[in-house]
Amino acid sequence: MTRHQLSHLGIHGILTPTPDETIRYFHDLLGMDVVATRGDSTYLRSFNTYEAWTLKVTASDRAGLDYVGWRTDGEEELAQRVAWLTDAGIEGRWVDPDEGIGPAYAFEDPDGHEFRIYWETERYVPSEATRPVIPTNVQAYVGRGANVKHLDHVNLLARDVRACREFWEDGFGLRTYETILMPDGQREAGAWMSSSIQGHELIYTAEKTVGRARLHHFAYAVESREEVLRAADIMADARVRIEAGPSKHTAIQGFYLYTIEPGGNRIEVAHGGYLRFAPDQETFVWTAEEWGKKPGWGAPPPPEFHVYGTPVVEELADDAARVPTLGPDDV
Amino acid sequence: MTRHQLSHLGIHGILTPTPDETIRYFHDLLGMDVVATRGDSTYLRSFNTYEAWTLKVTASDRAGLDYVGWRTDGEEELAQRVAWLTDAGIEGRWVDPDEGIGPAYAFEDPDGHEFRIYWETERYVPSEATRPVIPTNVQAYVGRGANVKHLDHVNLLARDVRACREFWEDGFGLRTYETILMPDGQREAGAWMSSSIQGHELIYTAEKTVGRARLHHFAYAVESREEVLRAADIMADARVRIEAGPSKHTAIQGFYLYTIEPGGNRIEVAHGGYLRFAPDQETFVWTAEEWGKKPGWGAPPPPEFHVYGTPVVEELADDAARVPTLGPDDV
Amino acid sequence: MTRHQLSHLGIHGILTPTPDETIRYFHDLLGMDVVATRGDSTYLRSFNTYEAWTLKVTASDRAGLDYVGWRTDGEEELAQRVAWLTDAGIEGRWVDPDEGIGPAYAFEDPDGHEFRIYWETERYVPSEATRPVIPTNVQAYVGRGANVKHLDHVNLLARDVRACREFWEDGFGLRTYETILMPDGQREAGAWMSSSIQGHELIYTAEKTVGRARLHHFAYAVESREEVLRAADIMADARVRIEAGPSKHTAIQGFYLYTIEPGGNRIEVAHGGYLRFAPDQETFVWTAEEWGKKPGWGAPPPPEFHVYGTPVVEELADDAARVPTLGPDDV
Amino acid sequence: MTRHQLSHLGIHGILTPTPDETIRYFHDLLGMDVVATRGDSTYLRSFNTYEAWTLKVTASDRAGLDYVGWRTDGEEELAQRVAWLTDAGIEGRWVDPDEGIGPAYAFEDPDGHEFRIYWETERYVPSEATRPVIPTNVQAYVGRGANVKHLDHVNLLARDVRACREFWEDGFGLRTYETILMPDGQREAGAWMSSSIQGHELIYTAEKTVGRARLHHFAYAVESREEVLRAADIMADARVRIEAGPSKHTAIQGFYLYTIEPGGNRIEVAHGGYLRFAPDQETFVWTAEEWGKKPGWGAPPPPEFHVYGTPVVEELADDAARVPTLGPDDV
Repeated sequence: MTRHQLSHLGIHGILTPTPDETIRYFHDLLGMDVVATRGDSTYLRSFNTYEAWTLKVTASDRAGLDYVGWRTDGEEELAQRVAWLTDAGIEGRWVDPDEGIGPAYAFEDPDGHEFRIYWETERYVPSEATRPVIPTNVQAYVGRGANVKHLDHVNLLARDVRACREFWEDGFGLRTYETILMPDGQREAGAWMSSSIQGHELIYTAEKTVGRARLHHFAYAVESREEVLRAADIMADARVRIEAGPSKHTAIQGFYLYTIEPGGNRIEVAHGGYLRFAPDQETFVWTAEEWGKKPGWGAPPPPEFHVYGTPVVEELADDAARVPTLGPDDV
Repeated sequence: MTRHQLSHLGIHGILTPTPDETIRYFHDLLGMDVVATRGDSTYLRSFNTYEAWTLKVTASDRAGLDYVGWRTDGEEELAQRVAWLTDAGIEGRWVDPDEGIGPAYAFEDPDGHEFRIYWETERYVPSEATRPVIPTNVQAYVGRGANVKHLDHVNLLARDVRACREFWEDGFGLRTYETILMPDGQREAGAWMSSSIQGHELIYTAEKTVGRARLHHFAYAVESREEVLRAADIMADARVRIEAGPSKHTAIQGFYLYTIEPGGNRIEVAHGGYLRFAPDQETFVWTAEEWGKKPGWGAPPPPEFHVYGTPVVEELADDAARVPTLGPDDV
Repeated sequence: MTRHQLSHLGIHGILTPTPDETIRYFHDLLGMDVVATRGDSTYLRSFNTYEAWTLKVTASDRAGLDYVGWRTDGEEELAQRVAWLTDAGIEGRWVDPDEGIGPAYAFEDPDGHEFRIYWETERYVPSEATRPVIPTNVQAYVGRGANVKHLDHVNLLARDVRACREFWEDGFGLRTYETILMPDGQREAGAWMSSSIQGHELIYTAEKTVGRARLHHFAYAVESREEVLRAADIMADARVRIEAGPSKHTAIQGFYLYTIEPGGNRIEVAHGGYLRFAPDQETFVWTAEEWGKKPGWGAPPPPEFHVYGTPVVEELADDAARVPTLGPDDV
Repeated sequence: MTRHQLSHLGIHGILTPTPDETIRYFHDLLGMDVVATRGDSTYLRSFNTYEAWTLKVTASDRAGLDYVGWRTDGEEELAQRVAWLTDAGIEGRWVDPDEGIGPAYAFEDPDGHEFRIYWETERYVPSEATRPVIPTNVQAYVGRGANVKHLDHVNLLARDVRACREFWEDGFGLRTYETILMPDGQREAGAWMSSSIQGHELIYTAEKTVGRARLHHFAYAVESREEVLRAADIMADARVRIEAGPSKHTAIQGFYLYTIEPGGNRIEVAHGGYLRFAPDQETFVWTAEEWGKKPGWGAPPPPEFHVYGTPVVEELADDAARVPTLGPDDV
């Protein structure tokens, strides 16, 4: 396995049928700043991230994932990954810089989610008004709403979790810290992967509907568990739907709050999760039975948590996005 | 209404069929210190309380409440309350000092729970080993387990919540900050009462079984929500049963963790809850409908939370403690 | 001693030579809302307080205290306190309701600070936009800046701390939880007083300059120590002067952050401090020597903390507000 | 620069003239467990670390550093680093496995501190009593004292900070996130280095005395800033000397508490510090002037913080460990 190819999750995009409300959610409640607007897209940055922007919100007829970006560990690593994709027969295309970041190479994972990898980026330069008092910070404290920082992780629904996991391990050197193995000893219900010592950056969990390439959630980091609890107060009084939490995950053990933004996408406010320092850390494999016992504390999320994603599957009725389900008892 | 009669919840006792395990729970996991043992009873003190001891654990054939003590606001107030009880035709008796605290006047609330009121008490005197560095503290930091402090509140199950509430309002000047009113406009499903600006000290919730004079839970205070979360880690790894939380209550808005101690009594680790500064604060009355919507955030506790208490009602089958139920749809 | 006369600190006012900047500080950084403007005065309310407003900021030629209000424990208590003041030969005057709260009886403490006591008040009524999701809250979560809640305590500089302390004990039944006794065994360098179980509401510390009736600081409460730390980030990046903290006080043991608002008044963001449940709690008397050792942890505040107050004494040079100093080594 | 050679700080050792008291400090107050005793050495493990042990305490005639270990990123990387050292003419020696971990290659940095690098390690296997309820944890929650986790970073005093920094950058691919540059534009007063996205693992600050190869401090991680504050309560009441904090560092921005363990070594309880995700993150270079202004908040540590280290320099009077000072105004 070739390690140290990707550095961190980078820029990413979501689609929304209600762009104004969605942007208000990210601006007012998560505390992101609007950086630019271009056509149907609005670019926002989250607090203290070093890149010029974080999230691209694009108007669409339905909610869902636009793409997930990774910054590679270097220029050479970008070229090597493109070569690997080509050798593996995976189609891709070069995308011009998007609002200053890139060029990026775009391709799909085995479930069809779009990813982009890039090396060149643009750093945020504070204005006089946003210059931080400690110069190693990227910007002055915003403190609006939940004041989220960088993208902590993304969770994608996949019809074949195992195939997706192996794709990232083989092609990009991601490490897998936890998986859930189905009783057949082959299929997997979940996989938690990372390019670094952080417990998770990329998660796949099993798609249980006719959907494909769907988004489960994006998770943004805050400074402490106290800030997750504070975010819950903010969301509740703003009448944003809280789906689950604040509570603690069993996998990776992060502290979470799940909301549904007005456009329908699930957004998490997250803190923590373990760090895995061992370079030879083995994957912890949950059996479905052990997993089902949910050791530790915290109320389990509601059943819909395991099914709901975007685009919403009911909206796919007559649509090419519909794919044959794997069967009701599959996962 | 005569106000300012009671100062605060004081000494209190529980019964347990497994005294050794129960004491280990309070000592090792909640962090209380054993102060004395006398016959079937063990006296423990929680961190930094000014009285010599806090909790009396007594071996019994089943779990449940022994008694709840209040310290009055003065010597005169004690005499006045005894007079009021006598005038009201409520029987009581004087109890000799218990391990240095008292004498106390013992009586029952309308549901049959034993209460004791007292003025004379004994203050904790630290030893050389427990002398705190800041002399306004009662003792040096213990830091064992959840390190609980004073009794924050007690919740009792009552067949007639309203009668119990009126008993404490009329006789002892407690203030009621919240109640839940049943659709009949008469009966109440819960009442949260206090002698001070704290949101709750004494709670009644509706008894839904054939039991009487049962304990719902005792709640001990910790310093922060972070310490409630930490207590959950302690309890989970000690294989103590966690019934609900950590999460936030709708009533009074405290942050909670519910555990079942080995003897079967429900014990809460609690932080916060609002302070009510207004001397003319009106009771907030929830309709059952509004209450059922559970505004705010946090997973609801499991159904058994509203039914389970001690003594466990199944153990009362052939017992005089059984009382006619109010009917399955009563509350 | 007549107890239970005052319920809690209520409305209060400060003077500022830079009203616009001062109001921006309270609005943007502390998170208060502007309720009304009337002449040179602006009325602000802090998060979740039940009264219609909290703080009155008035333009003046220099910074300092306008007045401190207490809400009495009832209407009768208000009449009794006015009678006591009259009997004691202390002049006062009735003040018409100020922006809906009052009438109030105004008088001076022995050092000349203006206080007002009142019973009638006006409760905050949320608009549709500020209606909280949990109806026992006063308003929806604001979450702007430090999001301070009620006035936690006020600290006044006094030439004769002991006289001030005795005035409030004798006349208003305040309890004194801590004092610092000077080596002469008579004079006091500090006194921490409260009308309730909270460790402090009213503090006097020794005036060391030619000033009189000066303000040391107002302190507003936040939800946790984490929120005090967060407030420090907010203040630092806003280039507000941080005088001391975040750290922990020895007296009362609250967690603090001291800032100087643009007008020159010292404002604290505060969390915690002990609760004193014992109705017969004795005052803890520090000797100057013990106090000087500063047991516990936390860096001591800078020397100016013990001298600076508003109005700034240098501005009093040719002024009737100048009073003879007690001598350089007096306290 | 060859990157990704070292994975993380690993086992390490300190010397103490008071081994019993030092071990009590690490066991009772930091919450480490004793794993083994061998001759003059005691091996302790900190909470939830994956290796079998963390810290080796060895009796000695004076306090100071024994050695700092790094685990390499793989077996091959270990061989490559040994080759680099040999090529660079730096002497080293192979050390047999120490209590199961190793073999290690031992060598000195330019100031003379001993380091060891190793690949083979031994993982902690919980007993029935220490088996965690969540199987991805290494062990059940200890919760004794400050309950520290892994070694967060180590700070070493160096006569030539720049030479030490370049040694680790050139030979081991560490990244330097911050340095302080002296007015001469050449010498450095501090350097903060890391093998990962964490802000610091290895710090050098300028030695200002005749000492050499001295230890400034070891820092152990806790879960939150709240736990650092809690550690301060523990240490204060245990009468352990607190040198500085709790407060926030300007460099890396971690939250700290500095204590002096009974043997004289400085030990930090630490939380946080930024993560640096950018693979091409440039070093932030402080000028001495900017650094001296200490932007941000928090009281500065006392002057001795910049001078004191172990061994204590006064004990070196007649000793070969004495080296010529760089001159009083040098750094």
